[in-house]
Amino acid sequence: MSRKGILTVVSGFSGAGKGTLMKALLKKYDYELSISATTRAPREGEVHGREYFFLTRDDFESMIESRKLIEWAEYVGNYYGTPKEYVEQQLEAGKDVILEIEIQGALKVKEIFPEALLLFITPPNITELKSRLVGRGTETMETIKKRLDRASEEASYMEYYDYIIVNDDLNECVETTHQVIVNEHNKVSQNKNFIEAITAELKAMKEGEI
Amino acid sequence: MSRKGILTVVSGFSGAGKGTLMKALLKKYDYELSISATTRAPREGEVHGREYFFLTRDDFESMIESRKLIEWAEYVGNYYGTPKEYVEQQLEAGKDVILEIEIQGALKVKEIFPEALLLFITPPNITELKSRLVGRGTETMETIKKRLDRASEEASYMEYYDYIIVNDDLNECVETTHQVIVNEHNKVSQNKNFIEAITAELKAMKEGEI
Repeated sequence: MSRKGILTVVSGFSGAGKGTLMKALLKKYDYELSISATTRAPREGEVHGREYFFLTRDDFESMIESRKLIEWAEYVGNYYGTPKEYVEQQLEAGKDVILEIEIQGALKVKEIFPEALLLFITPPNITELKSRLVGRGTETMETIKKRLDRASEEASYMEYYDYIIVNDDLNECVETTHQVIVNEHNKVSQNKNFIEAITAELKAMKEGEI
Repeated sequence: MSRKGILTVVSGFSGAGKGTLMKALLKKYDYELSISATTRAPREGEVHGREYFFLTRDDFESMIESRKLIEWAEYVGNYYGTPKEYVEQQLEAGKDVILEIEIQGALKVKEIFPEALLLFITPPNITELKSRLVGRGTETMETIKKRLDRASEEASYMEYYDYIIVNDDLNECVETTHQVIVNEHNKVSQNKNFIEAITAELKAMKEGEI
């Protein structure tokens, strides 16, 4: 019904399976994944405008200054950020855009796009989260402890999200995420044009024009 | 995930097909339709506690006074209202309850149950609405004009609803309505207990108890 795209922001605990979820969701359904800008060098096979927009430090900083980024952060000496123009173009074209970013960035997006849909991905419980982190086998117990400490902080931001998506069964999680986004198109706040059109039609009819 | 039931309020233009939608929805899915109280006499075949709770005028008025009704109205000399206790019991038992009521009543429900999900059913456009009203063949042009005038007033309340459900194809409309209610269980506001449990687990783990 609504023609404008929905901007969905996906965050969640490290180990909640966000990456796997995003891959499965994009494989099955037609979403635009937002492309980030970065100052780090492209790795072999990475293409400008596909994996990232690769920018010089000067260019990135001038984007910060001219407020062309929805959110940005510096990480291990490099900038990473979400260009506003790309997201706006996709939304205007009616495409549903997904951003996978961490919590501080997500809250920043909500400030700039109040209509954004914020989804928080979580395992069914913390024992499961811990065993997923341990199961990766790539991280020391110290790193795992750090991630759990971080999760503890992140949990306090769950209430600022719109929906909690429990990732227990992957397929189910893909379907739930998809349905939540599909339904968002029916929200009153996404249908102001439709309401205006209906109101105008009724008014015209009342005045005997139809 | 959430154990408590969702209270859904369905309203919409006369001629939008609410009645048909409710019947199809209840036939296919497991929802509790809220039972109204009324002072009108039972018709043949109607059972107390099934079609309505049939009350005396005194009993109804004492329910109004003791605030045991979520909303009520007087119509052609009889009272009609929604008993609070029945709805609360069903919700506590984890059942999703549906109320089909007009707009003033719906807004009253939202005051008393801020977590209620308000759905507004509409045909795709007003020409369609008019042709449905005419197509019934049971109403004079004067009545139809009155209904359209009323719709014009009702349209100004659409913005207070949560979702707009367009009833173009009945099956599609049933599925959309069902999905919107299903998704409501994933809302952050419906999952405060889950968030508390996760937070407590993480805290315990941080303090080395797990």
